[in-house]
Amino acid sequence: MKPMGPIPPFFTGEEGMLLIGGSGAASLVDEAGDTPLFVYDMGIVKEQVRAFRDAMPSMLSLHYAVKANPYAPLLERMAKLVDGFDVASGGELTRAREAGMDAAHISFAGPGKRDDELIVAIDSGATINLESEGEARRAIALGEQRGRTPKLAVRVNPDFDLKGSGMRMGGGAKPFGVDAERAADLVRWVIDAGADWRGWHIFAGSQALGAEALIDTQAATIGLATRLSEAVGATPSLVNLGGGFGIPYFPGDERLDIRPIGDALGRLLEARADILKGSAFAMELGRWLVGEAGVYLTRIIDVKKSQGETFVVVDGGLHHQLAASGNFGTVVRRNYPIAVANRFGKGPAQEAVTVVGCLCTPIDRLGDKVALPPVEEGDLIAIFLAGAYGASASPAAFLGHPSPQQLLLD
Amino acid sequence: MKPMGPIPPFFTGEEGMLLIGGSGAASLVDEAGDTPLFVYDMGIVKEQVRAFRDAMPSMLSLHYAVKANPYAPLLERMAKLVDGFDVASGGELTRAREAGMDAAHISFAGPGKRDDELIVAIDSGATINLESEGEARRAIALGEQRGRTPKLAVRVNPDFDLKGSGMRMGGGAKPFGVDAERAADLVRWVIDAGADWRGWHIFAGSQALGAEALIDTQAATIGLATRLSEAVGATPSLVNLGGGFGIPYFPGDERLDIRPIGDALGRLLEARADILKGSAFAMELGRWLVGEAGVYLTRIIDVKKSQGETFVVVDGGLHHQLAASGNFGTVVRRNYPIAVANRFGKGPAQEAVTVVGCLCTPIDRLGDKVALPPVEEGDLIAIFLAGAYGASASPAAFLGHPSPQQLLLD
Repeated sequence: MKPMGPIPPFFTGEEGMLLIGGSGAASLVDEAGDTPLFVYDMGIVKEQVRAFRDAMPSMLSLHYAVKANPYAPLLERMAKLVDGFDVASGGELTRAREAGMDAAHISFAGPGKRDDELIVAIDSGATINLESEGEARRAIALGEQRGRTPKLAVRVNPDFDLKGSGMRMGGGAKPFGVDAERAADLVRWVIDAGADWRGWHIFAGSQALGAEALIDTQAATIGLATRLSEAVGATPSLVNLGGGFGIPYFPGDERLDIRPIGDALGRLLEARADILKGSAFAMELGRWLVGEAGVYLTRIIDVKKSQGETFVVVDGGLHHQLAASGNFGTVVRRNYPIAVANRFGKGPAQEAVTVVGCLCTPIDRLGDKVALPPVEEGDLIAIFLAGAYGASASPAAFLGHPSPQQLLLD
Repeated sequence: MKPMGPIPPFFTGEEGMLLIGGSGAASLVDEAGDTPLFVYDMGIVKEQVRAFRDAMPSMLSLHYAVKANPYAPLLERMAKLVDGFDVASGGELTRAREAGMDAAHISFAGPGKRDDELIVAIDSGATINLESEGEARRAIALGEQRGRTPKLAVRVNPDFDLKGSGMRMGGGAKPFGVDAERAADLVRWVIDAGADWRGWHIFAGSQALGAEALIDTQAATIGLATRLSEAVGATPSLVNLGGGFGIPYFPGDERLDIRPIGDALGRLLEARADILKGSAFAMELGRWLVGEAGVYLTRIIDVKKSQGETFVVVDGGLHHQLAASGNFGTVVRRNYPIAVANRFGKGPAQEAVTVVGCLCTPIDRLGDKVALPPVEEGDLIAIFLAGAYGASASPAAFLGHPSPQQLLLD
């Protein structure tokens, strides 16, 4: 048997059926019409937003990183819950506006913005987080062509990283942002060129579960923003502190308590240097807001034995949940939390089983030697933590299966 | 500097421009209208088919594994070039038929076939490669419901694997097929139930570059088919020997010489046991037929420095070429062959560069510290070996970028 990550605390069962947003998993499948199905519970998202507002200083704005989950009905709800959206492409920018977010509260980061994407940002009035001097030149030239003043922030490649983060975005040579030592020069140039300088974007890493490391990183981030602003000699309108809050995916992971982070950040902001006194501050979070709110439900097609091992074959797979298969940015495959939705809370069978997807490839493995109750064909497997980097971050066309169903619960 | 895999021998340059199917890469981009662009050269596919026909025994049929590349114009050409298609879903089966392949020459493998997929196969007359006893029961019951005799082959989980293969599909507990020791019993049951038994499907592994290992595996496969057929007491109409021919992706890889494999297989088939005298034989190949024929062309958006390293940012990325980023079934990331299409054959710059995609994630890396000629914005980067498991096997919706262009050259 191999361990699995912890099931998020929001989920309970009733008479052996997993409840999602108060509804039984099987009835949600009936409502959607078919498996595989992603269910997103806005109740959990609202809990996370509330926890953020409760814990963090009141002056700190909350932005949603659209890349985590761009499902249109979810974006529409998020537009009302958070203070801004961060997008990573012209396509996401368009979807963000369609969801009702004012472009004045949208910022656009990403290392390879094409001219057509910069134009969408300039014309709509979204802020462009500049990733390089070359991008700054192009944005300013395009602004002149369009007869509009571009709103430009500078993304900084910080000279530190977020310890313990799943994805390090700073501390060394990186494709993201401008190295800290060149950032002030770039801002002076941007201001001289007549653009509207909007501030700093400093993103040191994501998916961290250690409060101490996050506190240290936020202190370093505000320190860097202070030094850079003083070097420019101007107050940034916004300091985007990046994200970094992680969620527990794997065995041994524990949920992050953000209250000490909020307390420490409150003290930091209280004591901030004069040059940042007129600045607004924001964090951008994607996975932490929506990841735990999603459940992937997939039906068992076959239960089979091979050389003494039991394989549970489901109608979903890595074409919908690439990350859960261990093929998306992870070196060693580990088990996401997984359960039998219609036997929820039942004790495990004597023997562990391996849950595989329906794709004809050995890498389509959703649960490796996991302890589940005894199962049979037709049962529903639930894979948790499917709210972020799931449906939109998987190779949906691979092997020609239908797209998954998606259902949002208010 | 880190090494890269070898550029396939089919590609040359003319006045510094990469030629694909006799056309310059830049003019192909003009023809397609935009980058990123997948170009598939049917000339190379035809060369591979010819090499197969030349090297392999004339009685061996050639099947195409649609999962490698299901692009509709390519499937239409393949339907005329090969003797059959192997599909992995009901969706692929439908596409195979739309491309003009007769269902009588289509077989359908895959561990999690849904009832609606089995029905499509039964109604069309395609062969179902059974993956388990449970699937056999379902297929026979559905055949009775439909009033049609299902064509059923049995996929065997062999008790050996293909040494050195990139993906092992046999030799141990596997989700694919029926363990060898239960296969004859299943066939007897299938025949007794009145189904049309079509033979064996034995797939031990894929992406192997060692001729000796492939020869050994084919010998073991025919040995197993012999023993199983004798245990059944009937001659299989088809023995599908699987695939396994690899292509060189990485530093140190060399192209496979299939001639000794064909010679050895010819001798094996010549000397086959009486029970297989009336059988047809086939190999199913995907990657080996189409992988080298594809080139992914992506334009440089930015060239930037960070901490002394140079990053070349392109408008493509892992959303189109997941495997080249090292995030699809590989543990250690290595460099695919890569070149500057409009500076083809030029000597390398003094310093290596890192080619990253446009996605805002550190895993979007297409070339790690590779030796390329000096580059600038607007240049075209070519990533080779993009003909298989590229466009259809990547998370196209991730981060909301447009779908890639695709162009097929006859």
